[in-house]
Amino acid sequence: MTTPRQAPPASLSARELAALIDISAVQAFHTEADVRDLAGIAVAEGFIAAHALPNFVPLLRGLVPVDGPTLVGGPVGFPSGGHSTRTKMAEAVELAQAGAQELDMMINVGRLKSGDLDYVRREIRAVVTAIAPVPLKVILELAHLTDAEIRTGAALVAESGAAFVKTGTGWTANATTIERLAMIVETVDGAVEVKASGGIRSLDAIAQMVRLGVTRFGINTAVAVDLVRQCAALPGGRLVVSGGAG
Amino acid sequence: MTTPRQAPPASLSARELAALIDISAVQAFHTEADVRDLAGIAVAEGFIAAHALPNFVPLLRGLVPVDGPTLVGGPVGFPSGGHSTRTKMAEAVELAQAGAQELDMMINVGRLKSGDLDYVRREIRAVVTAIAPVPLKVILELAHLTDAEIRTGAALVAESGAAFVKTGTGWTANATTIERLAMIVETVDGAVEVKASGGIRSLDAIAQMVRLGVTRFGINTAVAVDLVRQCAALPGGRLVVSGGAG
Repeated sequence: MTTPRQAPPASLSARELAALIDISAVQAFHTEADVRDLAGIAVAEGFIAAHALPNFVPLLRGLVPVDGPTLVGGPVGFPSGGHSTRTKMAEAVELAQAGAQELDMMINVGRLKSGDLDYVRREIRAVVTAIAPVPLKVILELAHLTDAEIRTGAALVAESGAAFVKTGTGWTANATTIERLAMIVETVDGAVEVKASGGIRSLDAIAQMVRLGVTRFGINTAVAVDLVRQCAALPGGRLVVSGGAG
Repeated sequence: MTTPRQAPPASLSARELAALIDISAVQAFHTEADVRDLAGIAVAEGFIAAHALPNFVPLLRGLVPVDGPTLVGGPVGFPSGGHSTRTKMAEAVELAQAGAQELDMMINVGRLKSGDLDYVRREIRAVVTAIAPVPLKVILELAHLTDAEIRTGAALVAESGAAFVKTGTGWTANATTIERLAMIVETVDGAVEVKASGGIRSLDAIAQMVRLGVTRFGINTAVAVDLVRQCAALPGGRLVVSGGAG
């Protein structure tokens, strides 16, 4: 499954930046009104995806044009990762049938930390297969993992047929650092894309992560809107990622 | 469904106290070793129940004698509550079939806060019916709710056929206060039992809550073991709940 790593873009317009950003309403307390706001903002700003908790995905699907640039997504086995494989598969299939165009699944952190790697691998493959061709992002939840566990988890995801490895759920303290992202990018070596999520609050951080090879960002909605505005206000309306590449 | 409230006991032995306490390993990072430790402690101490994340319930079931005083349980739709009703039902049935003797389900907080009370009521009833006679505790997650929402949620649970209303998942900041418990006890008026969970760390707090009518506690394992020891070391080996009642 290894694919050549793409060179990162030299710079990003506000529109290109928005096309790298997922926004979501996946906290327990998010309401129907929050999901409506999410859909409106995602479509208006051209964010690449909007995610709601599973029971709100049908509502979200109805609010986001099917053929537009914004994808509808939802989380699977979220945020504990400790549901059974059967539950995760059924939930993923139900979401795909409801029109979700990508799904973010929490890895079974407890099994990963227990060294039960066969279980983790089998589970990811089962869900990938069950929802194909809908792409699956697999969340590692860095806050709960040692560096060695991050490498092991990222390697499992890379060999599983998933589309992305993702760093966090947003339910824990932020643990996504440049150093850990570099480790993940190196580990997966182009076999899957890398989505950074948790505590991303500046264009500088985004530029640094894009340079590293990160191709998707999960960002708080208000922060994401502000970052796209900041990008548009830069000289030439572009965020410089790198003087050399692209 | 209203049943007369039972008068609280006047005092509790260490053994009687243990028989009011659930312990659990339901954080994302809990490992197989944690589940084994949980089972050993629950059985040795005579706690009323031990709960593990769904994928570990079959393991836990194998570690706890089926006919002993300790029940095996697991969480449903946990901890977001935002899974679809279909997913919650399937997960609950799978856990009951795996031998879980009681289940703690997260209420759909987002729907409750959206005022979609029919959805919340239908969902609880559907799960209660699907797993009967296995008892269902329904978690409100007080940290996310206003006092009015707590009353509304507790009233819904009280009319749903559930066995207990429970205050929190352990995944959020502790929000279980005596004042809120009193409000819940008053609202459910004996139709369901009340389980207090989150931040309970002293025998004084337990005595106060038992006096109020709380009949089950979810307590951190190490704290629970220590509290039972403290109870055994009290004069006469008993925690005095009330000078008058019983």
